[in-house]
Amino acid sequence: MTTNEATAFDPDLMAAVVELGRAVRGLVDATVRTTVEPEELRSAAGAVREVTDRLTTSQRPASQLPALDDPIAFRRVFSPVTGVGSGIAPPLAIRRHGDEVVAEATLGLAYEGPPGYLHGGMSALFMDQLLGAATIAAGLWGMTAHLALDYRGPVPLDTPLVLRARVTENAGRKSVITGEIALASAPDTALVQARGVFVTPRPEQSEAYFGSITDASGRHRPPGRPTDATALDRD
Amino acid sequence: MTTNEATAFDPDLMAAVVELGRAVRGLVDATVRTTVEPEELRSAAGAVREVTDRLTTSQRPASQLPALDDPIAFRRVFSPVTGVGSGIAPPLAIRRHGDEVVAEATLGLAYEGPPGYLHGGMSALFMDQLLGAATIAAGLWGMTAHLALDYRGPVPLDTPLVLRARVTENAGRKSVITGEIALASAPDTALVQARGVFVTPRPEQSEAYFGSITDASGRHRPPGRPTDATALDRD
Repeated sequence: MTTNEATAFDPDLMAAVVELGRAVRGLVDATVRTTVEPEELRSAAGAVREVTDRLTTSQRPASQLPALDDPIAFRRVFSPVTGVGSGIAPPLAIRRHGDEVVAEATLGLAYEGPPGYLHGGMSALFMDQLLGAATIAAGLWGMTAHLALDYRGPVPLDTPLVLRARVTENAGRKSVITGEIALASAPDTALVQARGVFVTPRPEQSEAYFGSITDASGRHRPPGRPTDATALDRD
Repeated sequence: MTTNEATAFDPDLMAAVVELGRAVRGLVDATVRTTVEPEELRSAAGAVREVTDRLTTSQRPASQLPALDDPIAFRRVFSPVTGVGSGIAPPLAIRRHGDEVVAEATLGLAYEGPPGYLHGGMSALFMDQLLGAATIAAGLWGMTAHLALDYRGPVPLDTPLVLRARVTENAGRKSVITGEIALASAPDTALVQARGVFVTPRPEQSEAYFGSITDASGRHRPPGRPTDATALDRD
């Protein structure tokens, strides 16, 4: 496994994207918890629309990756799971740890399913990302072909969690990955167990899927297996 | 299946929550697409933090359901999938259609996995919600015990989709549900197929899981099988 750095990025832009992402996540959480009066909610909505209007004065087309992204290094700043700039993502900071990938998270009310617990589908979303990250950490890359989850117990909100995954089989374009979610205080008792099959698209499939994707400079940049770069932090 | 209405709610508060939820989703989308300068992003972050500060002047505790929620009717206004007030949710509007539940959605860049396509874990999140809604529509209710997904093809962003699910087996506390995601323009060709097993907690489990949950008035309100109410719109 190589350890070269991912492509360079504008650190001032990254800091600003991180700051706005954090602010939007704070707003999402506040909207879920607030008990202010309807008039105050409407006033907040108006203020939010003003901010949105300022941001939409200049936008990228959907087929153009964000300036900070690197599809080979799998740096995706607006990923709905790991994106530092995403208002949807916790965001998970996935890192390598031995033969595994691991992330810690404490999830709030915005991710609630049954009262007090993480939405079962959120466990699936996070596991899918961890399994994919494990394939990337192993020098592979693929898209989800099959994902299966067993729920052993409810995952509490506002409680430190640990998420892990590792590749258990690899045969050419196909990888099998397992992972789990546990309490950080009881890391060996899985509350959710996941197993995935990820498949690397053939070159002609990749071209059909990603033929129009460019980076911010307009250069064609489909995702692919990492060669000399990775977006994962290393322990 | 009964057709009584869910419990009443404050329509002015509901309208304000809907308005703020819509505004926050617009902001989340704008942050993902914007190409404004870092200084403008920082200014936006400051304005968002000011709104957040106003909303956090009065907050509910995590164990107290929002005033608009009805856990028996499964009206959850901040659900990360269906919540009209959630900045994370699309939100899906799930309705009954014959023996199925169905929802339409067009998902934007905030939900991206591989460039141009829906995150595979987002498909899992949405399917989990549809499968659960199918159990509720059938007069059952349960928590996810097993969820399996087969991905037949990538799900494009910015494209009308249809999501469906129905209960195929029920034996006491256990239900088996299947569902799929397809293009609205090709509804019979599943891009994602899902199968789930949902299990209704036994009374003692329910009390252990939800013993501290109250409604906005302080009354103990665990979730449960619907009796005479439902949050699902009817065709």
